Amino acid sequence: MKAAIIMGSKSDYPTVKKAEEVLSSFGVEFETRILSAHRTPHAAAAFSEKAEAEGFDVIIAAAGKAAHLAGVMAAGTVLPVIGIPMKSSFMDGMDSLLSTVQMPKGIPVATVAIDGAENAALLAVQMMGIKYPELREAMRAYKQKMNDEILAARVDL
Amino acid sequence: MKAAIIMGSKSDYPTVKKAEEVLSSFGVEFETRILSAHRTPHAAAAFSEKAEAEGFDVIIAAAGKAAHLAGVMAAGTVLPVIGIPMKSSFMDGMDSLLSTVQMPKGIPVATVAIDGAENAALLAVQMMGIKYPELREAMRAYKQKMNDEILAARVDL
Amino acid sequence: MKAAIIMGSKSDYPTVKKAEEVLSSFGVEFETRILSAHRTPHAAAAFSEKAEAEGFDVIIAAAGKAAHLAGVMAAGTVLPVIGIPMKSSFMDGMDSLLSTVQMPKGIPVATVAIDGAENAALLAVQMMGIKYPELREAMRAYKQKMNDEILAARVDL
Amino acid sequence: MKAAIIMGSKSDYPTVKKAEEVLSSFGVEFETRILSAHRTPHAAAAFSEKAEAEGFDVIIAAAGKAAHLAGVMAAGTVLPVIGIPMKSSFMDGMDSLLSTVQMPKGIPVATVAIDGAENAALLAVQMMGIKYPELREAMRAYKQKMNDEILAARVDL
Amino acid sequence: MKAAIIMGSKSDYPTVKKAEEVLSSFGVEFETRILSAHRTPHAAAAFSEKAEAEGFDVIIAAAGKAAHLAGVMAAGTVLPVIGIPMKSSFMDGMDSLLSTVQMPKGIPVATVAIDGAENAALLAVQMMGIKYPELREAMRAYKQKMNDEILAARVDL
Amino acid sequence: MKAAIIMGSKSDYPTVKKAEEVLSSFGVEFETRILSAHRTPHAAAAFSEKAEAEGFDVIIAAAGKAAHLAGVMAAGTVLPVIGIPMKSSFMDGMDSLLSTVQMPKGIPVATVAIDGAENAALLAVQMMGIKYPELREAMRAYKQKMNDEILAARVDL
Amino acid sequence: MKAAIIMGSKSDYPTVKKAEEVLSSFGVEFETRILSAHRTPHAAAAFSEKAEAEGFDVIIAAAGKAAHLAGVMAAGTVLPVIGIPMKSSFMDGMDSLLSTVQMPKGIPVATVAIDGAENAALLAVQMMGIKYPELREAMRAYKQKMNDEILAARVDL
Amino acid sequence: MKAAIIMGSKSDYPTVKKAEEVLSSFGVEFETRILSAHRTPHAAAAFSEKAEAEGFDVIIAAAGKAAHLAGVMAAGTVLPVIGIPMKSSFMDGMDSLLSTVQMPKGIPVATVAIDGAENAALLAVQMMGIKYPELREAMRAYKQKMNDEILAARVDL
Repeated sequence: MKAAIIMGSKSDYPTVKKAEEVLSSFGVEFETRILSAHRTPHAAAAFSEKAEAEGFDVIIAAAGKAAHLAGVMAAGTVLPVIGIPMKSSFMDGMDSLLSTVQMPKGIPVATVAIDGAENAALLAVQMMGIKYPELREAMRAYKQKMNDEILAARVDL
Repeated sequence: MKAAIIMGSKSDYPTVKKAEEVLSSFGVEFETRILSAHRTPHAAAAFSEKAEAEGFDVIIAAAGKAAHLAGVMAAGTVLPVIGIPMKSSFMDGMDSLLSTVQMPKGIPVATVAIDGAENAALLAVQMMGIKYPELREAMRAYKQKMNDEILAARVDL
Repeated sequence: MKAAIIMGSKSDYPTVKKAEEVLSSFGVEFETRILSAHRTPHAAAAFSEKAEAEGFDVIIAAAGKAAHLAGVMAAGTVLPVIGIPMKSSFMDGMDSLLSTVQMPKGIPVATVAIDGAENAALLAVQMMGIKYPELREAMRAYKQKMNDEILAARVDL
Repeated sequence: MKAAIIMGSKSDYPTVKKAEEVLSSFGVEFETRILSAHRTPHAAAAFSEKAEAEGFDVIIAAAGKAAHLAGVMAAGTVLPVIGIPMKSSFMDGMDSLLSTVQMPKGIPVATVAIDGAENAALLAVQMMGIKYPELREAMRAYKQKMNDEILAARVDL
Repeated sequence: MKAAIIMGSKSDYPTVKKAEEVLSSFGVEFETRILSAHRTPHAAAAFSEKAEAEGFDVIIAAAGKAAHLAGVMAAGTVLPVIGIPMKSSFMDGMDSLLSTVQMPKGIPVATVAIDGAENAALLAVQMMGIKYPELREAMRAYKQKMNDEILAARVDL
Repeated sequence: MKAAIIMGSKSDYPTVKKAEEVLSSFGVEFETRILSAHRTPHAAAAFSEKAEAEGFDVIIAAAGKAAHLAGVMAAGTVLPVIGIPMKSSFMDGMDSLLSTVQMPKGIPVATVAIDGAENAALLAVQMMGIKYPELREAMRAYKQKMNDEILAARVDL
Repeated sequence: MKAAIIMGSKSDYPTVKKAEEVLSSFGVEFETRILSAHRTPHAAAAFSEKAEAEGFDVIIAAAGKAAHLAGVMAAGTVLPVIGIPMKSSFMDGMDSLLSTVQMPKGIPVATVAIDGAENAALLAVQMMGIKYPELREAMRAYKQKMNDEILAARVDL
Repeated sequence: MKAAIIMGSKSDYPTVKKAEEVLSSFGVEFETRILSAHRTPHAAAAFSEKAEAEGFDVIIAAAGKAAHLAGVMAAGTVLPVIGIPMKSSFMDGMDSLLSTVQMPKGIPVATVAIDGAENAALLAVQMMGIKYPELREAMRAYKQKMNDEILAARVDL
């Protein structure tokens, strides 16, 4: 079980790093790359086309503005592709969100919330859980822990 | 390999049916249900919680307006949940899209385009392809066919 | 006369606290809880279903992003539910607003302005005023005082 | 138990009528009026100020575009006011929604979905249920019936 | 020639003051008041209804969020009313803009840009210039000066 | 008392005609022209610059999309300019509205609602009423008639 | 002087044809192709990379929803690329517009109005006019004719 | 090869300067001016009309809010005009974007991203590259360098 994490710019890394941390906590191997749909089109396409052969199960792609990176990944592979619309300087990432989620028929991108790097990783874990039962168990524990922590929280009145 | 398709209202079915057709064309078993996050909360939660035990690999949930159905599904299971924001009478489904994609940290929903029922099914196939190699091959053929058909298209000048 | 105040995350409390202060100033009893529609689904549903029996007259629910908390409360009770869409990092809470107000037919949520915690409490007081005449009188005094303060305000030209 | 229903224009009636039908089905008395915040300001203000004395428990106000009617009602009374933002010809009623829900501190309007006349009436019933236990029971039955009908629905595969 | 300047809250004054400064520079008399459509409805309506008799030629009204102040002014007078939508904490004042400009047929509000206090005053001057030729001359000089200043501006390359 | 009505395209006339009808009903003289800020820039600028000398008191300009017509008019004259944002095929005229109302400091446009041709004419009447008392009286009668008609309206329950 | 016209789907042709007609009227040679950024990624990239060698001066790309086609073209060539955001079923093409215009630093797309096929062709003519003086003269005549036609238009009062 | 850079206000210069830097790096001559569509209408129109005769190949126009500057430039010349919508204080420049891109048929503006000054200059270089082969070569090198830099970037895991 191995995930690829692609981001369009090095400046996306502080957010994207949270996806790495989640994957690590579930014991999922990953590789992280900086590739741009527009500025490194050959490298981006090549990565997507070789991802399956290199043993990746899922690709996570994070990009902003006219965010085509997840779409380029999805065009080149039969693996599921998860898109993280990065918060941009325009309408808090409305451009990124629409560029990522409004994919045409035939080429889906599994879009998570704007800047939703943790959820992208959790979704990748759930997808890989279809094959790896241990990931399902780990996810069950994760959800139980989250539930318990919230119920334990108190506010000072 | 089995998918659940849940919709919030019977009126969603003309769109949701396209997901069924795609799943059928890939030979993926599915069950379709009408369940509402708000109007049948117990049944909706119960379905989600039993989905794994009943052998489902993935849940597709379609709902509109304040579209909580995919979120309710995601809350109750460790399976990946795909959300289809249904086109509503408000801003072409902006309410459905934001209610589905902007999930909080911990509970992801894999969101596709508004009314993107075919893509929801294709994404489900890609997810299950992690486990079932034959689905990857079928997806590869699907993409090749789509590519060839577009290149064969001509416009009358 | 007793109100429940539910919030999706402890981080909502600085805003939600203003609802507590308003309720206190009207002498209305309240209980405040942290419950999440997605992360503590059982506890959230259970709270809603027991609220009437525990003597609550109204439930105030505050949540952000894909804000399903008020909807979950409304699904489980016959009490009126007031929703506070919390300002999120996306379009100043447009996601929270639409997720809260655009409820489907059958399950209303009384939605107030984004971050409108004071108004949520005032609305709760007005609702309870249907039964308790002393709350109507207190509300009348509140409005008169507000009117007088504004008319007394002056700007330095 | 009596509700007032106010609409800004006769053209709102096909939608508003659904609120009447819901109130009738719960046995709640109501009066319906056409009053405009801008075109009949005196009559609108006067209605609001006398509503409590005339025995109304709640006011439902429906208006579109720069929809000030619910706000004018709320300004003049201590009764709870429910606002129905009418779908307008601009962005499906975004103007109506924001004009109704974004009320300033001190004067809440309980806003329902755009064109949500049924839910406005159901919310009025829930509010009056604080005082009248029979309305709570009727609402419980209404919700159970809705739940059962949805679970009985089937789609033709 | 006399203008009224009304604002919904004392906190609007830093912006509104710019309208005063423009009016002063044109030698136009003005009075400034804090009045709220929702919190001081009687005083607001009364001001509007007496404005003509008190010698005002035009009313400038500044308000934010569900900004009904300009509409209330316009409802009560035959004088032209200029609306300044104040920048709010939601979408930079989209709520204020739509609440001010989308007035129903019969009751216009002359809306200027969000936070456009200077332009509101200039527009008032232009309106009064219909009657007072000296204001037209002053406006001509104002525009010429503005033109000359911009043409004299240089950027350091 | 004379108003100019300018529209960017002949296709705007069905809406703009309503402004003519209102002006006629108030006995206000007017001239209507088709001029485009972008396609007839010289003629548009020339009209604006001569409007005062030709005895116009106010200019009404209607245009859609990137609606610069009212701005071009306002740039060339000291007369008040009223802008009608025409409903376009994009977001019901959001482009027209923002292009008309968001004018920079120094050059105001008195913006009315999208497609608000009647209100543009009424606003012109109110502006001219500053000089012509008979227009104020006519406006007073207009408002009274509107008030009476609404109060006389009834809905069939 | 030769232009390429690319569209993402055959269904775009009724709009795109208008660009062909404009180019024809200016005597500019063109070729039209159906290529999809997502469904025919290799063919799309290959076209872009060979366009310069095949004698094209400019590429016009029309696509809708998550409209990546113009961006893919721009990634692969040093020719100027003009993007036509196609009106989609979501917010009249807001998704197409943002996906086309919000390109990252380094890879511009010259974006025209939604469905602005004529303007895309006119812009291509203007670009080629930098090299071919006869196109400038033809454009000058085009603009003069447009100016004259509008000034000749009359409305029936 | 010479470009004109026009901005609506001196305050736009920190952004616009980046266009100058890009043009300089490609060895393209340019002149920068402050001109306002609304405040210096004669000077703006005159500049546009003389631009071709003065040897400019392309005009870049940057403006915000109701951003008419690029449209005014385009109205007066047969040269291609590139519009930079400046980020405004309203919705991050949505007003500027729509005012610039939604041009009517006949008068295109080549619109780049909000605040996209570098891309405006790169687009100008690509346009001039139609005539000047050395600019195409320089652009090819620019793109290669950009590609290489991104592929060389690494994130610290």
